[in-house]
Amino acid sequence: MSTIQHTVAELAERFGLAFQGDGQRVIDGVGTLAGAGPSQLSFLSNSKYSAQLSGTRAGVVVLREENAGDCPTAALVAKDPYVAYARIAALFERLPAYPAGIHASAVVSPAARIAPTASIGPCCVVEEDAVIEDGAVLGPHCIVGAGCTVGAQSRLVARVTLVTRVTLGKRVLVHPGAVIGSDGFGLAFDRSASDHGSWIKLPQLGGVRIGDDCEIGANTTIDRGALEDTVLEEDVRLDNQIQIAHNVHVGAHTAMAGCAAVAGSAKIGRYCMIGGNAGVLGHLELADRVTITAKSLVTHSIREPGEYSAGVPLQENRLWRRNAARFKHLDEYVRRLSALEKDSNNE
Amino acid sequence: MSTIQHTVAELAERFGLAFQGDGQRVIDGVGTLAGAGPSQLSFLSNSKYSAQLSGTRAGVVVLREENAGDCPTAALVAKDPYVAYARIAALFERLPAYPAGIHASAVVSPAARIAPTASIGPCCVVEEDAVIEDGAVLGPHCIVGAGCTVGAQSRLVARVTLVTRVTLGKRVLVHPGAVIGSDGFGLAFDRSASDHGSWIKLPQLGGVRIGDDCEIGANTTIDRGALEDTVLEEDVRLDNQIQIAHNVHVGAHTAMAGCAAVAGSAKIGRYCMIGGNAGVLGHLELADRVTITAKSLVTHSIREPGEYSAGVPLQENRLWRRNAARFKHLDEYVRRLSALEKDSNNE
Amino acid sequence: MSTIQHTVAELAERFGLAFQGDGQRVIDGVGTLAGAGPSQLSFLSNSKYSAQLSGTRAGVVVLREENAGDCPTAALVAKDPYVAYARIAALFERLPAYPAGIHASAVVSPAARIAPTASIGPCCVVEEDAVIEDGAVLGPHCIVGAGCTVGAQSRLVARVTLVTRVTLGKRVLVHPGAVIGSDGFGLAFDRSASDHGSWIKLPQLGGVRIGDDCEIGANTTIDRGALEDTVLEEDVRLDNQIQIAHNVHVGAHTAMAGCAAVAGSAKIGRYCMIGGNAGVLGHLELADRVTITAKSLVTHSIREPGEYSAGVPLQENRLWRRNAARFKHLDEYVRRLSALEKDSNNE
Repeated sequence: MSTIQHTVAELAERFGLAFQGDGQRVIDGVGTLAGAGPSQLSFLSNSKYSAQLSGTRAGVVVLREENAGDCPTAALVAKDPYVAYARIAALFERLPAYPAGIHASAVVSPAARIAPTASIGPCCVVEEDAVIEDGAVLGPHCIVGAGCTVGAQSRLVARVTLVTRVTLGKRVLVHPGAVIGSDGFGLAFDRSASDHGSWIKLPQLGGVRIGDDCEIGANTTIDRGALEDTVLEEDVRLDNQIQIAHNVHVGAHTAMAGCAAVAGSAKIGRYCMIGGNAGVLGHLELADRVTITAKSLVTHSIREPGEYSAGVPLQENRLWRRNAARFKHLDEYVRRLSALEKDSNNE
Repeated sequence: MSTIQHTVAELAERFGLAFQGDGQRVIDGVGTLAGAGPSQLSFLSNSKYSAQLSGTRAGVVVLREENAGDCPTAALVAKDPYVAYARIAALFERLPAYPAGIHASAVVSPAARIAPTASIGPCCVVEEDAVIEDGAVLGPHCIVGAGCTVGAQSRLVARVTLVTRVTLGKRVLVHPGAVIGSDGFGLAFDRSASDHGSWIKLPQLGGVRIGDDCEIGANTTIDRGALEDTVLEEDVRLDNQIQIAHNVHVGAHTAMAGCAAVAGSAKIGRYCMIGGNAGVLGHLELADRVTITAKSLVTHSIREPGEYSAGVPLQENRLWRRNAARFKHLDEYVRRLSALEKDSNNE
Repeated sequence: MSTIQHTVAELAERFGLAFQGDGQRVIDGVGTLAGAGPSQLSFLSNSKYSAQLSGTRAGVVVLREENAGDCPTAALVAKDPYVAYARIAALFERLPAYPAGIHASAVVSPAARIAPTASIGPCCVVEEDAVIEDGAVLGPHCIVGAGCTVGAQSRLVARVTLVTRVTLGKRVLVHPGAVIGSDGFGLAFDRSASDHGSWIKLPQLGGVRIGDDCEIGANTTIDRGALEDTVLEEDVRLDNQIQIAHNVHVGAHTAMAGCAAVAGSAKIGRYCMIGGNAGVLGHLELADRVTITAKSLVTHSIREPGEYSAGVPLQENRLWRRNAARFKHLDEYVRRLSALEKDSNNE
């Protein structure tokens, strides 16, 4: 493989950054402050790692102006070194080549519309009336169901399934195993049925709309709506194994960590942060800029921005057991406390 | 696409409902009370939405007799409007056509038995001794392992994997990414192994039996049994990303919401409702008609029907922190409370 | 199918066990103490099942010496009957035949290196520079991305995706739907972007290294590292639907139950046991031999071996509601308790 190389001065110019030190130094990769070698770029953003700066062997470090004086090597000075690093590092990412056109093993409906610049990988299935726009990439084993649209420059990494009535915007990135547009979980209980009643399925007649620049993690599931659409606005970022139920609406720029789940018809605001394995019950509303910490269950709507939590702290099991057992009688203890207070006041 | 159309009178007759208003009105779809137009059917089941009835533009509304007087348009009167709506709405669902026969790209063992009316989609793999019964549909990318059976009229939407010794009943619906019949997680720790011991795998020699009319959500996993079978009785409804471990037995008509998990050999009764991300530990038994609320962990068997919960409520993080810190010493506080009470009684 | 048959004496010799009773009895399968018939082997390991021994119809029972006297049939005597049973039972497992070579429907890059003894199943995709070592098996629909390695005798059961820079050791077993080597969830928030800021993706330039004898469950996801690798040491056992984020390091012989999740850069020790749906926050360290019980969230590093828990116990919903409501004011109650104590001491 050929090497990707840029000089420090080139990087400074390309990203509009000031630099100090040897501008002609050639950089061919990135690394941590502790691990990077002389041809690699590193970064200092979190002050927790400041002590590592003096000992770094990196060829160049992206950092804030205030740290430039302590840098033993070339430096690129950025207001937000983490953001600058993210942009620069992307230069050094090798993505596989995606040849335009349709792989011989793919099964594509003649009634699908595939842009000539799109790439349809091995064993993909594209059904009738599907639309694959300019420069979109379907890696191996993707399924694009009837009537779905994959927007320009979007990439389905591999083995992504868009079931039905799914529209992806531009530059959407979907990781393997994700299932978008599957039936929402809508059931009516028919008491009149034989036995003591049974379930009747509600047809799921809506779709899913995913905005531009969203990212959907591996094995994440997003169901389509019952009557109207499930919606992710632009720049929503979902980690792996997230569950988004039917008719959920997620505001722009909201991010959710792995294994979070949102029940049906909940409405999540913009710029929210939902922690790992956190949950939101159905039909609730979260305001913009709400943060939910990991594993918390949201059981009521939240009107004010801020950070919200639930759960109890981890302890050694033998201590935890005692406290947990007491929890079952907490109401009684509080009543006893109140009674004592009353006695005490009456004395 | 041709339009699906039914008059109000036709719907009334077909579903055995009384109607009022214009029986010749033509209906071609469904919608919410707030969103439906004059050619669409809507419904009023939850009294929370009663206020929307007077303003609806729907062509016809399915509702209870008590609401018929307030309906500004045609009405279909049902004892259970939600169930009636579910049945009617199914008429307006467009499922893709599934041509009988085996797609040219599918890989089917000559030792598999495929009913002539079954549909085997693109890139499916059907291994030896598998049986696909009348009218069953395998969407694209399904794998039916050796010796598995897919019952009549069942549908594997797409990319479903039946690993081994899996039997699906009739009219079972399985969504993309589901894995049924994978190895149970059975391990023995061999202390005598080199180092300080290592794991030995227990072969998983049982299968999975799924009853008629079950539904299995996207990316749900159901492991096969170690010695005997993992069983779902009829009409069990599993949402997405549910985990059913080996040798679990789920009673008929039980429903589980997204991300619920049941550990090995647990036995769940009939007509249970397991909330989202709730968990049941191994070897426990739940009686019929037990409801577990979202995110609760069941740590002991439940003998009585009813609703059960665990967890603590969501709060602003700054308040929650204080309470959570106190939880670690709850046992101590109760002892102190008891001591005070004793003092108080002795005075 | 031909039958797999072994006499009791053959089993005793093969596994170095003493036996009592009829050594010529022919065994062709395994079963539970309660369910096994005269040609089947069973085992007694957990004393909870001792009472079933006298009534067993099994042909032979693997048990401890202390139970041999109570055995009504032939016995194989083992120090650890569960481990011995696991080894013997594996003899009776029928795995499908995996013919060496590449299935006609597979899409294999000419730049991949496939050992002649490896088996590449239907519809597999193997990209350039991938390496499939001796005796490795790729079941149907596996994807091995560019530059990934599947070690000797490893088995990808079906529909496994190795995205990029993934190395599996020897004898690794991966179940359907697992995604290994997908992008870690790395984002920088760019406040300077239009609107009120948006996310920038950090390229994920590391890989994943999985040690020998690991097992990875169905629909489990393991992301690749941002700069360095995500690592599972040898003999790590992951159940279904587990989420391992980027740069996590899991020590040898650690086991995790279904739906557990480990956030980015956490370091889990050796011989740990992580319960079902338990979680570990990012950047934490767990010592060797730490056990976390089901559904607990680890929010701080753990330096000492032992068992740790969080959560509150399940109760009837009407009781739980009262206690849960009190939790929101726990800090206040403790303050009131302290005030009472002070009053009491001052009297």
